Amino acid sequence: MGIKKKAIVLLSGGLDSAVTLYIAKKQGFNCHCLVFDYGQRHRKEIESAKKIVKKTGCSCKVLKINLPWGGSSLLGDKVPSTYVPGRNIIFLSFALSYAEAIAARAIFIGAHTQDYSGYPDCRPEFLKAFGAMAGKGTKAGVENSSIVIKAPLLYKRKSEIIKIGAKLNVPFNQTWSCYAGGEKPCGKCDSCYYRRKGFKEAGLIDKALC
Amino acid sequence: MGIKKKAIVLLSGGLDSAVTLYIAKKQGFNCHCLVFDYGQRHRKEIESAKKIVKKTGCSCKVLKINLPWGGSSLLGDKVPSTYVPGRNIIFLSFALSYAEAIAARAIFIGAHTQDYSGYPDCRPEFLKAFGAMAGKGTKAGVENSSIVIKAPLLYKRKSEIIKIGAKLNVPFNQTWSCYAGGEKPCGKCDSCYYRRKGFKEAGLIDKALC
Repeated sequence: MGIKKKAIVLLSGGLDSAVTLYIAKKQGFNCHCLVFDYGQRHRKEIESAKKIVKKTGCSCKVLKINLPWGGSSLLGDKVPSTYVPGRNIIFLSFALSYAEAIAARAIFIGAHTQDYSGYPDCRPEFLKAFGAMAGKGTKAGVENSSIVIKAPLLYKRKSEIIKIGAKLNVPFNQTWSCYAGGEKPCGKCDSCYYRRKGFKEAGLIDKALC
Repeated sequence: MGIKKKAIVLLSGGLDSAVTLYIAKKQGFNCHCLVFDYGQRHRKEIESAKKIVKKTGCSCKVLKINLPWGGSSLLGDKVPSTYVPGRNIIFLSFALSYAEAIAARAIFIGAHTQDYSGYPDCRPEFLKAFGAMAGKGTKAGVENSSIVIKAPLLYKRKSEIIKIGAKLNVPFNQTWSCYAGGEKPCGKCDSCYYRRKGFKEAGLIDKALC
């Protein structure tokens, strides 16, 4: 493993980031996963992330972060939007710090434009701007060996992501997508809806629901 | 206070960020301070930050963050560099999230190029790139009312910063600059050296040492 190039992979426990991790591994990276415990209502995804990591044999750090200003239904308040202000910016910033510390030269994120086009921090122009900033604000950047932000799913539809994941044997049954915070997926939230639609379009069965 | 425009101010407890806070207040902002407890060896600066905030009557949040990959002498390990990978990037990212949540349109940071020209995340080109990224990755940015990063000390020498602070009645005796983590400033670390030199050049007495 020592001679492989290193990457930080942002892992949520959801389907997209799990597929992203498997893509990073397939590309030959020695993956260091970063999971965030930010008080999300759907805490099961953290357990899912740990299970997925265990299966891949990668290293994993779970970071507890506190966003005491709320502003999102993911955090359990009454705001209807699921947007957490600056969430991906904060996640990527920690990943950048981690990458610098262990001399990784790539950060993988499962962001994509298809389902959540309303999230400003999932847009291609944001990821590009973040990469440019990383090139200015890190030692790696200054030394002209910048840290690259990789979002291999950026322009993929959910059904395509599922097909790619199926080929790579991603353990979909261990991923968690539901926002509702129950014991089983609610089947009603946006995330459950897009997952079901994706599996249907891909012509595959979602074993997490079996 | 309610009608004043809001700003987030990154406060460390050091001299530079204290002067920055007083500049932001002078500019008419309703300031919301953000202090980070990241396990720094010089923990006295957190207490200093709280005292400074109390004096100004601004609001303040202390955020505990964990950087389990170290990489800096500020964090108490043996690496000689005082550079914490991505520290300002992480701090600014939290500030950005906070700004979005309370609809603040400015973030003040005490970064300057003079003393620490080696820190990549204190460079003007970094702050500019961060601002550009903020314009792409936030709701405010998407709505064309972007959040501005303000670094009023960026091109100032330490002695100039001290002169500005003196005019604004910044309580210098409550600021903390030393990196060593003792009860009193060590007088030997880089930060103590630049502070002493700055006061000398400004022709002022550092009451923190009286």
